[in-house]
Amino acid sequence: MSKLDDVYAKLQVRTGAKLALIVLDGLGDIATRGQGWMTPLEAARTPNLDALVAQGCAQGRMIPVAPGITPGSGPGHLALFGYDPIQWEVGRGVIETLGLGIELKNGDVAARANFCTLDGKGLVTDRRAGRIATDVCERLCNILSAKISKLGTTQVLIYPGKEHRFVVVFRGAGLEGPVTDTDPNREGLPIAEAKPVDPANAGQKKVAKLISDFYKAALPLLKNQQPANGFLLRGVAHQPDIPTFERRYGLKAAAIAVYPMYKGLSQLVGMTKIEGVETIAQQFERYVKEYEHYDYFFIHYKYTDKAGEDGKFEAKVKAIEDFDAALPIFLARKPDVLAITGDHSTPCAVKGHSWHPQPVLLHSELSGSDKLERFTETGANVGSLGVFEAKYLIRLMQANAKMFDKYGA
Amino acid sequence: MSKLDDVYAKLQVRTGAKLALIVLDGLGDIATRGQGWMTPLEAARTPNLDALVAQGCAQGRMIPVAPGITPGSGPGHLALFGYDPIQWEVGRGVIETLGLGIELKNGDVAARANFCTLDGKGLVTDRRAGRIATDVCERLCNILSAKISKLGTTQVLIYPGKEHRFVVVFRGAGLEGPVTDTDPNREGLPIAEAKPVDPANAGQKKVAKLISDFYKAALPLLKNQQPANGFLLRGVAHQPDIPTFERRYGLKAAAIAVYPMYKGLSQLVGMTKIEGVETIAQQFERYVKEYEHYDYFFIHYKYTDKAGEDGKFEAKVKAIEDFDAALPIFLARKPDVLAITGDHSTPCAVKGHSWHPQPVLLHSELSGSDKLERFTETGANVGSLGVFEAKYLIRLMQANAKMFDKYGA
Repeated sequence: MSKLDDVYAKLQVRTGAKLALIVLDGLGDIATRGQGWMTPLEAARTPNLDALVAQGCAQGRMIPVAPGITPGSGPGHLALFGYDPIQWEVGRGVIETLGLGIELKNGDVAARANFCTLDGKGLVTDRRAGRIATDVCERLCNILSAKISKLGTTQVLIYPGKEHRFVVVFRGAGLEGPVTDTDPNREGLPIAEAKPVDPANAGQKKVAKLISDFYKAALPLLKNQQPANGFLLRGVAHQPDIPTFERRYGLKAAAIAVYPMYKGLSQLVGMTKIEGVETIAQQFERYVKEYEHYDYFFIHYKYTDKAGEDGKFEAKVKAIEDFDAALPIFLARKPDVLAITGDHSTPCAVKGHSWHPQPVLLHSELSGSDKLERFTETGANVGSLGVFEAKYLIRLMQANAKMFDKYGA
Repeated sequence: MSKLDDVYAKLQVRTGAKLALIVLDGLGDIATRGQGWMTPLEAARTPNLDALVAQGCAQGRMIPVAPGITPGSGPGHLALFGYDPIQWEVGRGVIETLGLGIELKNGDVAARANFCTLDGKGLVTDRRAGRIATDVCERLCNILSAKISKLGTTQVLIYPGKEHRFVVVFRGAGLEGPVTDTDPNREGLPIAEAKPVDPANAGQKKVAKLISDFYKAALPLLKNQQPANGFLLRGVAHQPDIPTFERRYGLKAAAIAVYPMYKGLSQLVGMTKIEGVETIAQQFERYVKEYEHYDYFFIHYKYTDKAGEDGKFEAKVKAIEDFDAALPIFLARKPDVLAITGDHSTPCAVKGHSWHPQPVLLHSELSGSDKLERFTETGANVGSLGVFEAKYLIRLMQANAKMFDKYGA
């Protein structure tokens, strides 16, 4: 914990205030000539957001990780939850596992896996085994699971994903990541050996040995399963021992998300997953129902990011308008502090995540007003929050909830 | 290297993109009543910059080092090149030497030197020896050089500067700065003894001893050279072992500068000096010619700073307009990512460098547009880049050049 974290922790008091963070995934965008120098937020009709802005909001833009760094969903959300994403690295194996909706325990080591094709000499001839069908992948994972559930005292859990993809989780004492990939990264080479990244790390050495043992047990089982007679492991990482949201902020937190990845990320910091919702309207209805039971709500909306990833400007505009149309359901039970933002930008022109600071809107009795008419990137540029690192958003929300004592006299 | 630097390094990929940084030295200024609350950038007619802004630019302001710190040219440029100027200190002796156009090697120790006048008791009666003429200085340096080229195994290099100024470079194994000045800082005192700043540092101790030996050899040679019968050393420092620009960013870099200081600073980080240009038009023409040979271009324009140092508002406006008039030569071969900024502000009202954040303009396919009409300090205040530390500019340029993989999944 940094010295600043320590100061925040010391100043923190419980107030019973309700805080809500609404994440429109990949919300931020850039103005381009092709769209008349408009961003989707600017082009969208958002009467309900506009009305909220008129009630007094502070705006700004947030650097998701550090200048120029494009985050994946993991670092993007960790920052929104107030965890420095440079300090708290969540490995790809862990993210992939969370994305399949699988719960991990602290200390679990998870790996992304691909089925692959090996030739007679053991050289990789297709790193994706011809992208076998998902049901084939499921069958092969069942074959492995049936025979390999333990290696020594370590539990081995195998979960199928889409097509050739699956994940392997090692659960036991004294395990640590990362270890190097067994994926040689190109065809014509043998499966690589997993090695500890830090040769002196006992937990990593143990995991490297487990992976070697796993191959010895698993490869014979796949021998006749052409084209998927081998597999490659990547992003082998352990679930970091992150302090829970409640311990860190004294807030009982609920996650109302639809996609497994975001449920998983919220669970990583100990939020309670609220299940059984599909649409943003249902998410908001559920928020209203659960209002009394939690102090902090994380509500995740995926469709802005999807449209951005596809480069579909009109679809992103529509996703924002759909969100806006449902917003009154949420606002019927306004929390004491509300933040609306993205976990990063997903500009249509980029067709992917980007480093551009995402706009953020903060509304509370004490947010003041930047006297803007709408919530947009260009407006947020001149907002009172300025351009700041996303990891500080929770601190601003806490401050607006009067959760901090004065520092010094 | 910081953990963040490490993350940047891991994410970095080569793309073949072309990046260019144009530095209008001391560009930033402040609006004062005397000039109708206009800055030189605001007062200047800049049709070509205006047209560039209309093509989509992100703007912001950069803190050269840290809030309130006024940088010299060294720290100002190191930050622009992405080297934390607090971490990488380049001593005055090194800067002065580079400013004379002299190449230094890593580990060289350089000192600024003044000829001075000593009385019969060895007390300093004039710290600048009556500001002797430059040709006298050259003659005296030749006298010293002729007799003293080595001290033990250490090479001694003496280079004349303007008037009473010269530099001394010690080149050999195991040398380190800093050591304390021999300049007593006022008249009436004897030449001070150079002492290691860290008494336990063997390299500094060796340099302190070398300086003592140098005085023993040199003072007798100047005995009859009134008024310049002594000399004082200041800013004794070694050239730090800075990782080269190419190693750090994977970019082959060229410097198109006119003044020796800026050539020297670029060389400090391993850029190739492009010689034989005098005017900004020639610099731009040369950039176009060299376009294929480098990945990154640093183009330095001095006259904005000169005018600011002299407190001449109209001259600074003229310098900006001259730059703008030449800009189309550059834009005929637009790089993938272009940044235009200063290394610091040199406000006319200050008649010197200042801490005021300098405006910066970033233009690329992915810079987006802040929908501003011009590039000015006031406009930059509301730009999407916000106010940020100059050392991050290269990171934003790299991001705009798609030089970073995504961080995390």
